[in-house]
Amino acid sequence: MTQKIAFQGVEGAYSERAAREFFGKKAETLACKEFLDVFLAVKKGRAKFGVLPIENSLTGSIHQNYDLILGHDVQLTGEVKVRVSHQLLALPGAKKSDLREIYSHPQALGQCAKFLKTLPKAEPVPHFDTAGSASFVAKSGQKHRAAVASPEAGVRYGLKPLAEAIEDNPHNFTRFWVIAPGKLKLPKNKPAKGLKTSVVFALKNLPGARYKSLSVFAVRDIDLLKIESRPIPGSPWQYVFYLDFAQPPDEEQGRKALDHLGEITAFTRVLGTYAPG
Amino acid sequence: MTQKIAFQGVEGAYSERAAREFFGKKAETLACKEFLDVFLAVKKGRAKFGVLPIENSLTGSIHQNYDLILGHDVQLTGEVKVRVSHQLLALPGAKKSDLREIYSHPQALGQCAKFLKTLPKAEPVPHFDTAGSASFVAKSGQKHRAAVASPEAGVRYGLKPLAEAIEDNPHNFTRFWVIAPGKLKLPKNKPAKGLKTSVVFALKNLPGARYKSLSVFAVRDIDLLKIESRPIPGSPWQYVFYLDFAQPPDEEQGRKALDHLGEITAFTRVLGTYAPG
Repeated sequence: MTQKIAFQGVEGAYSERAAREFFGKKAETLACKEFLDVFLAVKKGRAKFGVLPIENSLTGSIHQNYDLILGHDVQLTGEVKVRVSHQLLALPGAKKSDLREIYSHPQALGQCAKFLKTLPKAEPVPHFDTAGSASFVAKSGQKHRAAVASPEAGVRYGLKPLAEAIEDNPHNFTRFWVIAPGKLKLPKNKPAKGLKTSVVFALKNLPGARYKSLSVFAVRDIDLLKIESRPIPGSPWQYVFYLDFAQPPDEEQGRKALDHLGEITAFTRVLGTYAPG
Repeated sequence: MTQKIAFQGVEGAYSERAAREFFGKKAETLACKEFLDVFLAVKKGRAKFGVLPIENSLTGSIHQNYDLILGHDVQLTGEVKVRVSHQLLALPGAKKSDLREIYSHPQALGQCAKFLKTLPKAEPVPHFDTAGSASFVAKSGQKHRAAVASPEAGVRYGLKPLAEAIEDNPHNFTRFWVIAPGKLKLPKNKPAKGLKTSVVFALKNLPGARYKSLSVFAVRDIDLLKIESRPIPGSPWQYVFYLDFAQPPDEEQGRKALDHLGEITAFTRVLGTYAPG
């Protein structure tokens, strides 16, 4: 059986770094074009696990992945946080004054907005991903083009950094979830202090339902770590809620909270219990 | 004093339609390059009001605008919902089989993913905005290019629709906020049934603070309409919360809830009370 770890992007992507930080430097990775392909690779056995960016500390949640998790039979089995630090990458011999076009994912361009304003002759150009923009600049052979991407992407595609750590805010981390097929039997996490459980649910149409959904945890002194709401397609201004809570040392308490939650939800699905990254 | 309404995008943008739906067909509009420019136009008096997309019923909140509101002295004075229905727009005489490149905002391309797969010879190409992609295709004069944008953008730039209502899901609405300068004295909304108040706050570091922040409203039977959390840049995994609640008919109740909220927050700012769109 394959031991590959699926990630979205091309080689040199931050997601590939996340896979190596979690599974070790020698982990075999499988580059996937879209986030959906990561789910399909895991589901169809082309990869054993997948890594998915779920939240950035500056720009917030990556909602596409929240939405995809809802529609796929996967479970969460781990979490890893990666420091995001971008370089300005260009062909060997290119100078900053040569640059006219800076390619990257719009979010990365946004994260480096202040730095990019110091290059008045260069226009930011949106691209599908950071490492992909480095690959594109390298293949184009054009010295007036640069990419905003990871140091790994620079090495991988033979580009040179013209500037390092160009992000406006250094507190730039991305949190990734590790997914496994729903049917994979995982070794059970011991009920240790510090585990985290993630659930997704839709509320019944009851007065004060949002408040009641949090009460379930509050009355049992269970800490809520994150709540995210996402629209339900086809039901304008209705939401599903993704909630991370600190798994209480007494497992029974966690189970009771989820039973209680079930009383006020149209559905509840436990995504997984795992050690925080 | 100017009566102009600032919006982000070029003429023909959905935001411009929102401005006309709220202020009437003859409203004078001011096109701004970025969302930030809408805030600056309102602040510096180049526009009297601004319209900002805040949430789409399929893709969720437009977080950039939540983040910008926090940093600018503006108040919310209204809300408007616009039905988003895209057309495939190309130069007169172009046929579907000619198309090789389809330009639009990545979110609009995503909303039409199923339709675009029926054009196997054409690649989606990300662009900064929908109406801007229509302008770009028109200026390029290339019949192998098309844009995904509003009918208004097609008319404005002299493109012809090759297909209409090409979005995968017809329940596609965008909600816009109308902003006014913070210092502008607005006519006071009568405490009528159905008004909405939006606040933004950061919680004190207290146990169960999230839950307590909702209790403030629940114990007064005040309905919560939406909650959104956004990262605090520089404080990884800490959040500010944006909360919309139904303004109770007894104004005093709303004020008491906000006073109570102040006890558990590091800061609270009321963004405005307005009639829902």
